[in-house]
Amino acid sequence: MLFRQGNSSVVDKIERTHRKLFTIGLDYGTNSVRCVVVDTTNGRELGTSVYEYPSGQAGILLDPADHNLARQNPADYLKGLETTINQAMKQAKKTDASFDPAKVIGIGVDTTGSTPIPVDADGTPLAMKDQFRDNLNAYVWLWKDHTGYAEAAQITALAKKEHPEYLDKCGGTYSSEWFFSKILHCLRSDPEVFDAAYTWVEHADWITGILTGTEHPDKIKRCRCAAGHKAFYNDGWGGYPSEDFLVKLDPKLGKLHKTLSGKTSAVDEKAGDLTKDWAAKLGLKAGIPVAMGAFDCHLGAIGAGVAPGRMVKVLGTSTCDVMVSDPSKSLKDIPGVCGIVDGSVIPSSFGIEAGQSAVGDIFNWFVNYIQPGGEKEGSHAALTKKASKLKPGQSGLLALDWNNGNRTVLVDQRLTGLLIGQTLHTRPEEIYRALVEATAFGALTIINRIEEYGVAISEVVNCGGIAEKSPMVMQIYADILGREMKVSRSAQTCALGSAIAAAVVAGSANGGYDDFYSAQEAMTGVKDLVFKPIPENQTVYAKLYKLYKQLHDSFGIAGNSIGLANVMKDLLDIKESCQE
Amino acid sequence: MLFRQGNSSVVDKIERTHRKLFTIGLDYGTNSVRCVVVDTTNGRELGTSVYEYPSGQAGILLDPADHNLARQNPADYLKGLETTINQAMKQAKKTDASFDPAKVIGIGVDTTGSTPIPVDADGTPLAMKDQFRDNLNAYVWLWKDHTGYAEAAQITALAKKEHPEYLDKCGGTYSSEWFFSKILHCLRSDPEVFDAAYTWVEHADWITGILTGTEHPDKIKRCRCAAGHKAFYNDGWGGYPSEDFLVKLDPKLGKLHKTLSGKTSAVDEKAGDLTKDWAAKLGLKAGIPVAMGAFDCHLGAIGAGVAPGRMVKVLGTSTCDVMVSDPSKSLKDIPGVCGIVDGSVIPSSFGIEAGQSAVGDIFNWFVNYIQPGGEKEGSHAALTKKASKLKPGQSGLLALDWNNGNRTVLVDQRLTGLLIGQTLHTRPEEIYRALVEATAFGALTIINRIEEYGVAISEVVNCGGIAEKSPMVMQIYADILGREMKVSRSAQTCALGSAIAAAVVAGSANGGYDDFYSAQEAMTGVKDLVFKPIPENQTVYAKLYKLYKQLHDSFGIAGNSIGLANVMKDLLDIKESCQE
Repeated sequence: MLFRQGNSSVVDKIERTHRKLFTIGLDYGTNSVRCVVVDTTNGRELGTSVYEYPSGQAGILLDPADHNLARQNPADYLKGLETTINQAMKQAKKTDASFDPAKVIGIGVDTTGSTPIPVDADGTPLAMKDQFRDNLNAYVWLWKDHTGYAEAAQITALAKKEHPEYLDKCGGTYSSEWFFSKILHCLRSDPEVFDAAYTWVEHADWITGILTGTEHPDKIKRCRCAAGHKAFYNDGWGGYPSEDFLVKLDPKLGKLHKTLSGKTSAVDEKAGDLTKDWAAKLGLKAGIPVAMGAFDCHLGAIGAGVAPGRMVKVLGTSTCDVMVSDPSKSLKDIPGVCGIVDGSVIPSSFGIEAGQSAVGDIFNWFVNYIQPGGEKEGSHAALTKKASKLKPGQSGLLALDWNNGNRTVLVDQRLTGLLIGQTLHTRPEEIYRALVEATAFGALTIINRIEEYGVAISEVVNCGGIAEKSPMVMQIYADILGREMKVSRSAQTCALGSAIAAAVVAGSANGGYDDFYSAQEAMTGVKDLVFKPIPENQTVYAKLYKLYKQLHDSFGIAGNSIGLANVMKDLLDIKESCQE
Repeated sequence: MLFRQGNSSVVDKIERTHRKLFTIGLDYGTNSVRCVVVDTTNGRELGTSVYEYPSGQAGILLDPADHNLARQNPADYLKGLETTINQAMKQAKKTDASFDPAKVIGIGVDTTGSTPIPVDADGTPLAMKDQFRDNLNAYVWLWKDHTGYAEAAQITALAKKEHPEYLDKCGGTYSSEWFFSKILHCLRSDPEVFDAAYTWVEHADWITGILTGTEHPDKIKRCRCAAGHKAFYNDGWGGYPSEDFLVKLDPKLGKLHKTLSGKTSAVDEKAGDLTKDWAAKLGLKAGIPVAMGAFDCHLGAIGAGVAPGRMVKVLGTSTCDVMVSDPSKSLKDIPGVCGIVDGSVIPSSFGIEAGQSAVGDIFNWFVNYIQPGGEKEGSHAALTKKASKLKPGQSGLLALDWNNGNRTVLVDQRLTGLLIGQTLHTRPEEIYRALVEATAFGALTIINRIEEYGVAISEVVNCGGIAEKSPMVMQIYADILGREMKVSRSAQTCALGSAIAAAVVAGSANGGYDDFYSAQEAMTGVKDLVFKPIPENQTVYAKLYKLYKQLHDSFGIAGNSIGLANVMKDLLDIKESCQE
């Protein structure tokens, strides 16, 4: 029942015209890489494998002295590539005896981002060179690394002055999570690494480069979605930001410009063909196409059936809210929305990306760091069980969802959490529920902003672990967002999206598809269980949202009349001065 | 070393002029009653006994449907009276063979308050009558019962209009914790109990009435400190508020007026003499004097050596900050300070009482309700160990200490807690420390207010469990209050204060003292260990206090320009409407 087919006449047609062929989708997440082997006729996942990155803490290299720092080891990516593809194919064979590696017609890849890697002139990550083995700055700068917050502010300020058009496409503020903030911070804080890097490549581009033998900086193809959403790339101004702009940020940054091509590739294009070496390692046919890489949330959106009017929320440690524009309507810039990029998700539309810097991470923080509830009552399951029995408003608590800053619509990484309403009777499950509600209020703030700028959102399809596992979270989201919450049929929409991209680059002539919508029609769907808003809950949440918005604006918007926007920043300043 | 004597020449003189005699001090706290047997020559506690009230949860009768409700069983008080006096005297005999019950020259009593008890025309608590055995409204209305918050607001409003002088003496706002708020709430919510009550007597007055056979409403003596601090009593306007005022609150309340005498008694007066019956039960001499009862914090202040310029902080679940005025200076009304009452602490001075509605209760809430830190790391001891290693400001956290409302200087029980600055790395010990700091910022706000109105505070003597047990809390208080924190020599200053009152009512002719200061000189002292402000901590805390004050004023003061004072109240309104 959970595996509902798409429109059956379409499926019939597809099944008539397609032989049973397969694609591989790779999904590089924050803590692990996942691989799926997918039946292109119906999207069924025949084999799955997950590889937890062995380095650091849950795959992340941390610096106890600097909580903003988050790095990864590129060697983990390669080991994960080989391990998961082999294991997923083994499982596929068990699930369906007709599976044969020779019937794999393409590979797709998604990764987190902006997650740039400093590489030398041969394309080798500096972290893989002996000289830099002990230097975290030479490793991969994971999306959630916020060390470049000062540089982000500088980039925003310069762009505001010299190139406001750059900012219009990325919500008005350049984030510390993005490409140039990280590189400029490296330049400032570790010139040795900066100087040793010939260029910086996104994680997604490096993987597709490796698989197709195009990882050399002269050959590497850079994907539209990373460049457009995180590196000011736009065809309208001829590609990446001007050399002049980079020089003004820092003369040394200017040298990077020549290594950035004026052209990027969308996800319906090939990065190249699988090399003989990798084909041998993986037991696949050499020469099958590898799709351009893309960010996990973009391919997740495809795997969940994103379309005009249908937002996809990838609910994970953080959240990615992905929309595509209606090509028949004009599209305005939307202040505070991370990125609006032509063809970054579906080639015929503008991709619109928003998101929250932490969602599941906030719940995980409460469970893993605060460890409430003593010995037995503090797991996600135990807290959820009790929290789901509470009525909206019953706890008297209200929280802001800013424990990791605010990505949309305030675009301010230096905001922090807030909880209000505690009494001497407040219990852990009440706080847990307040944190869930806070993330939903944050999500509503994003939807409201996008709709205010003329992009209607009639449907929300959720995917990711939280959507899968927590009916309570989904019901709260339905009540607060005032919309039906649907859940993607696939439990691994990102990897499925990569597999769909692989089917599209393979093309119908080779048993794939010629465009994303027809591939989605056959390969995606939603579960039967739909979470509907409950009117009495909506009434209470409407009142709570007014208060959320009051706190949001008071603490989040500098220069407003309420004047509390200094508090969180001043606390951080004091905190930092204590650590000097 | 910890048992330091007072001025030695004075002690010599006292020891020369006094035979070795003893008094008994009883201290009725929130969860238990404690008794000490004290050597009047030097304040040494020879015997101690504690009786945990057996009823309800830790002695408190609760209503799961109404967190504002907190009641007690008067039978627990009587059982505790007999049990603890007998046990403490047994221990005294073991400690000092010269102890003899016949050498006990007086008894003193303190209790929590305002903790009124509805009694019938014979002075019997309604809770002890079969008819009301199952009705919580017939029991003792414990100080921390906040069910009368709406009535408190009504009383404040009427007094503002008709008798602003009433409010001037109690900080400008009548609290839900106080006498008439509770009685009026009973009248409104349970007329049957209200009608059955001939009058209401404070816990302290009921105990001294019982011991001296004066519990009958015609004979009962009411203590100055409860009447003055919690029931608008003032000799200036002829005693209790006018009948007219009570009638305007509710015609039925007017009938109470005739049961309230126009006279009250200070703590240096006798309530009466110990009855034969009780003398027999306790093995004491009949006819020894029983001092007027008083609130625990007032007698605690005496036991800790309160004097002009020397504030005593009784640090417990809540906090009582007690001062006495310098009789040589005029004293202004101090807005937001709970009470300024002639002779309520030391007969020759005005007693000034301020306090925080929750201090230890906030730390207990975090430990017992939130139960952070998993299996092993969540005790007060474990959290304190880690928190004491943190530097001021290092966590980036800031809290408000309002989990049980704000008693001074905002006088608003309907304020709630707030925590700001959480990140994904925030740890339990950081929150614990932020909660401790919040209570210290609240304490500083009180001191600043009192000093702004011309009452200098040069010295702070702390007593109560927290002062005894937590050097970390004391150091944080020293750093934030910017004053040396001294700790009372006695671990049970409230009970010691009661024993001092007993020695004063006995008088020097009977081996006691003729006034409080000479009794304090002999019987009290501070520990050698004094906590001194650390300048670098003070610098950081000065910055944090500015932010605390900003939050305090924004969320706590209605009608100010910042306009967030609605948030906590609106959340409570929503919470209450959910429970209807």
